[in-house]
Amino acid sequence: MKITVSRKAHFNAAHRLHNPAWNDEKNQSVFGKCNNPNYHGHNYDLIVSITGEPDPETGYVMDMKILKDLIKSEVEDPFDHKNLNLDTEEFEDLNPTAENIAAVIWKKMRSAIDDAFEVKITLYETERNYVEIG
Amino acid sequence: MKITVSRKAHFNAAHRLHNPAWNDEKNQSVFGKCNNPNYHGHNYDLIVSITGEPDPETGYVMDMKILKDLIKSEVEDPFDHKNLNLDTEEFEDLNPTAENIAAVIWKKMRSAIDDAFEVKITLYETERNYVEIG
Amino acid sequence: MKITVSRKAHFNAAHRLHNPAWNDEKNQSVFGKCNNPNYHGHNYDLIVSITGEPDPETGYVMDMKILKDLIKSEVEDPFDHKNLNLDTEEFEDLNPTAENIAAVIWKKMRSAIDDAFEVKITLYETERNYVEIG
Amino acid sequence: MKITVSRKAHFNAAHRLHNPAWNDEKNQSVFGKCNNPNYHGHNYDLIVSITGEPDPETGYVMDMKILKDLIKSEVEDPFDHKNLNLDTEEFEDLNPTAENIAAVIWKKMRSAIDDAFEVKITLYETERNYVEIG
Amino acid sequence: MKITVSRKAHFNAAHRLHNPAWNDEKNQSVFGKCNNPNYHGHNYDLIVSITGEPDPETGYVMDMKILKDLIKSEVEDPFDHKNLNLDTEEFEDLNPTAENIAAVIWKKMRSAIDDAFEVKITLYETERNYVEIG
Amino acid sequence: MKITVSRKAHFNAAHRLHNPAWNDEKNQSVFGKCNNPNYHGHNYDLIVSITGEPDPETGYVMDMKILKDLIKSEVEDPFDHKNLNLDTEEFEDLNPTAENIAAVIWKKMRSAIDDAFEVKITLYETERNYVEIG
Repeated sequence: MKITVSRKAHFNAAHRLHNPAWNDEKNQSVFGKCNNPNYHGHNYDLIVSITGEPDPETGYVMDMKILKDLIKSEVEDPFDHKNLNLDTEEFEDLNPTAENIAAVIWKKMRSAIDDAFEVKITLYETERNYVEIG
Repeated sequence: MKITVSRKAHFNAAHRLHNPAWNDEKNQSVFGKCNNPNYHGHNYDLIVSITGEPDPETGYVMDMKILKDLIKSEVEDPFDHKNLNLDTEEFEDLNPTAENIAAVIWKKMRSAIDDAFEVKITLYETERNYVEIG
Repeated sequence: MKITVSRKAHFNAAHRLHNPAWNDEKNQSVFGKCNNPNYHGHNYDLIVSITGEPDPETGYVMDMKILKDLIKSEVEDPFDHKNLNLDTEEFEDLNPTAENIAAVIWKKMRSAIDDAFEVKITLYETERNYVEIG
Repeated sequence: MKITVSRKAHFNAAHRLHNPAWNDEKNQSVFGKCNNPNYHGHNYDLIVSITGEPDPETGYVMDMKILKDLIKSEVEDPFDHKNLNLDTEEFEDLNPTAENIAAVIWKKMRSAIDDAFEVKITLYETERNYVEIG
Repeated sequence: MKITVSRKAHFNAAHRLHNPAWNDEKNQSVFGKCNNPNYHGHNYDLIVSITGEPDPETGYVMDMKILKDLIKSEVEDPFDHKNLNLDTEEFEDLNPTAENIAAVIWKKMRSAIDDAFEVKITLYETERNYVEIG
Repeated sequence: MKITVSRKAHFNAAHRLHNPAWNDEKNQSVFGKCNNPNYHGHNYDLIVSITGEPDPETGYVMDMKILKDLIKSEVEDPFDHKNLNLDTEEFEDLNPTAENIAAVIWKKMRSAIDDAFEVKITLYETERNYVEIG
């Protein structure tokens, strides 16, 4: 029987929502305060969920220490205490909405984890706004 | 790839569980303290989840400000600081259990949101009891 | 050295804020939505904190089971699933603001607990509004 | 339309992760600090979720008081304040990982609840690690 | 008897820790990741606590709607979705550590609130780090 | 003006409440389920609060990285994933109630931190029971 194991992590980052194909007025109209040219920031809470069969020898679907380390190398090291627009390759040409950040994290974790497992990402941008993918 | 975006809100309301087709003894036996004729109340925590494809121009599945405003007009304005049994049309003839409140909210949000999106409602009646629909 | 021990509990109740010495217009102006004549309600989260010297034989300032039972008999039994305005003697002539509810609970707990201990009450009316006394 | 109702509970227990088919070195290498021969412990937060059609007479999928009592008799009474390895039959020969504890609880709740309902278990071992089954 | 009433709010901002009197090496050594020249950000959770005597006519120490509006005009409007270093006068020459942000907010709220009341500020920079003043 | 900075941490441990000067019947009567001879366990949430004047050069009362490392060496390394009764010197002859654990941690942190600062410890044994000292 399949079981899902989840690990919570977090990172703190600055970002700005902006579509370079639009003029300032349209960017301001669509993204409002999130369009501030000097950036604002968030404490992002991240949950990575892995679904699979437990290994009968360990009783683990996946060792949480391994998942914790993967989240650190794939997400926390590149994104924590960074400006997503300026300091990362992933968002150089991609608007760092919660949806796009979650999609980028999903692709990174999906590549890093064996295909025998399903991968799901939950990302809280604030306590009241969050997104899920996978 | 589909993404789910969720927005949390809350409202405070009084209610009473009661089936008018039953006598007082049966109502008391089934609904216990929740049958108090003078009502009791809750802080209802509500999560509205919308699933769809992100718009490539905005990077949004749905603008959270739009969803926040919809929740205000459809749920908070009619239900917040109200007596669900006495002050609302929806529960004039419907027992305001968490299940029924969630189903009413689901119908209201489902009508208000484009059919291209899936809609799910999560409603916490207390920190320990909650329901999901959709 | 003194130590403070705290126990969390909760109760769900309906209430209405109203000053009978005022006319409806003034009540509505001061208390707004909280003045709804049909009541609204809350999940009240309560913390009772007791400060004193630990007993060297038990290592306890106070047995948490005893404190839990006192909160049940003094607060949960009379207030849980009740309409504070209609179902309780304490708020027959006292406006059930969070401040007044906390003060009533403080007096009840202060009477029930040995004078060797200090007593403090924290009462959350919502996740964002709370009061402290003692 | 189907609705899911969930009830949260918790229990506090000691455990040790260990595979008796392995030597001490391999157990230490795989399970790390969780292999401590003198045990360590957790506050386990448990969510039991039941999916079904609401009863039109009550408006309930399942009376939460009944579900609360079932969780008490099936999970809290046998596991709360226990050493899972030493004090329970279920983990006499089964490694008490979060995955295995959740699977044991799922089987117990599945047997106790009418087949008309789906049953899902969510078990938090810590605030950052949790598992889901069903 | 004095009672403390508290109101929670939040704002999202970018910042950078930096002492212009030091060279880059020393700034990096002291402030680490928080010295990133492109800024990072946080969801700041703020609690404003007011202590005083309840008004016997209202049962309020202070109307929470008034306190909510004061927090909005004094803190949320100038700081929410801003870069504290670049977009605010207060941190033009003041390092925006949690301690300094809390002290600035305390001074603003202290000036805005009648001297009959005591004012205390609690500011969460992350779920694990917070400061208190007043 | 003095500011308090707080850092949250946690550790998971097994323990048993027992007074060796009493017979089994009295231990069982006083400590109930907590007297289980095979131990039970908890996720202990710890808050260490330090009060002092911010350093004008850094804007810090204390660098949170230094406090985090002190909590690791003084509390997490010796207590995390341990049996407090069997694996630690501190509780060899001291009943590991929440009060006594908090007092031991207070003494360890008080010794490790400069006398210019005040030290306070908050220890959650469960979500509903916690103690404060200092």
